[in-house]
Amino acid sequence: METYYFGIDIGGTSVKCGLFEDEGRLLESWKIPTRLEKNGAYIVPDLVKSLQKKLREHSLAASCVGGLGIGVPGQTDENGSVLLAENLGWEEFPLAQLLKEQTGFPVKAENDANLAALGEYWYGSGKGSRSMMLVTLGTGVGCGIIVDGKILAGAHQAAGEIGHMHVDDELQETCSCGKCGCLEQVASARGLVRLAQRPGAGRTLSAREIFEAAEQKEEVSSAAVERFGEYLGKALAMCACVLDPEVIVIGGGVSGAGKFLVETVQKHYRRYAFLPCENTELRLAQLGNDAGICGAFRLIRG
Amino acid sequence: METYYFGIDIGGTSVKCGLFEDEGRLLESWKIPTRLEKNGAYIVPDLVKSLQKKLREHSLAASCVGGLGIGVPGQTDENGSVLLAENLGWEEFPLAQLLKEQTGFPVKAENDANLAALGEYWYGSGKGSRSMMLVTLGTGVGCGIIVDGKILAGAHQAAGEIGHMHVDDELQETCSCGKCGCLEQVASARGLVRLAQRPGAGRTLSAREIFEAAEQKEEVSSAAVERFGEYLGKALAMCACVLDPEVIVIGGGVSGAGKFLVETVQKHYRRYAFLPCENTELRLAQLGNDAGICGAFRLIRG
Repeated sequence: METYYFGIDIGGTSVKCGLFEDEGRLLESWKIPTRLEKNGAYIVPDLVKSLQKKLREHSLAASCVGGLGIGVPGQTDENGSVLLAENLGWEEFPLAQLLKEQTGFPVKAENDANLAALGEYWYGSGKGSRSMMLVTLGTGVGCGIIVDGKILAGAHQAAGEIGHMHVDDELQETCSCGKCGCLEQVASARGLVRLAQRPGAGRTLSAREIFEAAEQKEEVSSAAVERFGEYLGKALAMCACVLDPEVIVIGGGVSGAGKFLVETVQKHYRRYAFLPCENTELRLAQLGNDAGICGAFRLIRG
Repeated sequence: METYYFGIDIGGTSVKCGLFEDEGRLLESWKIPTRLEKNGAYIVPDLVKSLQKKLREHSLAASCVGGLGIGVPGQTDENGSVLLAENLGWEEFPLAQLLKEQTGFPVKAENDANLAALGEYWYGSGKGSRSMMLVTLGTGVGCGIIVDGKILAGAHQAAGEIGHMHVDDELQETCSCGKCGCLEQVASARGLVRLAQRPGAGRTLSAREIFEAAEQKEEVSSAAVERFGEYLGKALAMCACVLDPEVIVIGGGVSGAGKFLVETVQKHYRRYAFLPCENTELRLAQLGNDAGICGAFRLIRG
């Protein structure tokens, strides 16, 4: 009898679900809305219903399911409890235990950035490497670290929180973390928009528009992209002095800027990197939004 | 029959040796000179002779020896070959293989900073923790990282090379690594001396004297120690955003400055640290020069 697994990725607007075969083939993926009402009280029951429906559609017995891995936008502990997931309204929420009780499946839960990294490590741009950092450039800067196939979680679940590396002493605005001068304030989509602001200008360009204008060599946008690349390249060079990963993978919405982004960051990375790490490869992520469910599958599949 | 192990630490002036019982008790430690002539060709034969003599002194048969761990001031690969140890004159030097052939013992070799970290993790200030960074402040800045009992070596054996994190854009002098603005240039013994330099002053104070003067609140030395602490505290806060270790241990010659040093660094660390890591403990190393042989023992003992 074939064994199947669920890989789940809870986001702020939708819960992404995947049904995987034992060998890793994604049989089907689908989404359900994330209902945030009542401190996220509907999220688990909605998910359980959807999974049961999917099993019926595929005429699969619950006994065929080897387990369920699930990613959360927040901190988890070793028992799969969610310590804090602000966007979902969860605090000290026993996610894995609840899901186990309501489905009967073995369940493991993890931070979503870590699972995205695990997904890219197994099936995406980290494939074949022994260690990898996935840096996710979106509204903020996220990061997951894999060493020898294992997630590096950290003593306070804060490993890979490179968005909060202090990289600028001049910045006056406060970061979401409460401090000033964080990488996330300059090397995220929002950060790029900030770097491209011109006094007295009319409409603000989006991160995407800034990259496009920079590729056309428009002056202000080019300068902003260079500064963005320098902040990020320098920070990644520092990360390499700590971790020395085999590959650095860049994902998230901003990575839509593609080769131009990677080349700009790599140029600055090389300037600041310690010699043995100078040629560490920077690659674009491959799995896009599927990275999370693929990592969730690997988490439970082992 | 009791099993014994050798833990060895090769330095630029002497080779430190330890004979350990199976459970980790250090039976005896001794030193032999490191002969650097002929590209370090005498180091291995000198060591082998010394080990054989020691076994005779203790009336131990070679068959009682479970293995030998050895630390080297340079890069090693997974087979225990030394890729480069400039101070010893070794390049592509099959250390573990040679020692194995000449002693018959199982042999493992590793970078010395990594072994010092492993030693502190097992028997010193990292005892009881799950992950640890040992930062060694001497002429340079070294570092070894342990996660779940294992050395984090890195893809190019460069994990923990935090001495070469780029932390200052203004510095013009070149670092030993060939680049500018490295942590080692400002947060080592030499770095502190540099920070305390006063134009036109007579004799330069040593790092130790600067710490002593700063404790007496002498102005120039106090300012230098504060800057030293800020560079190091800020860099360690960045490291924590990557690794999030449970404990950060500070060792090396400069750590002789004791509590005053740790408190100064910790103050700045907290200012720059990401909130969940703000209270990560900074501790002084406990094992001093024995850290290396203790780590070498654990490396081979497993």
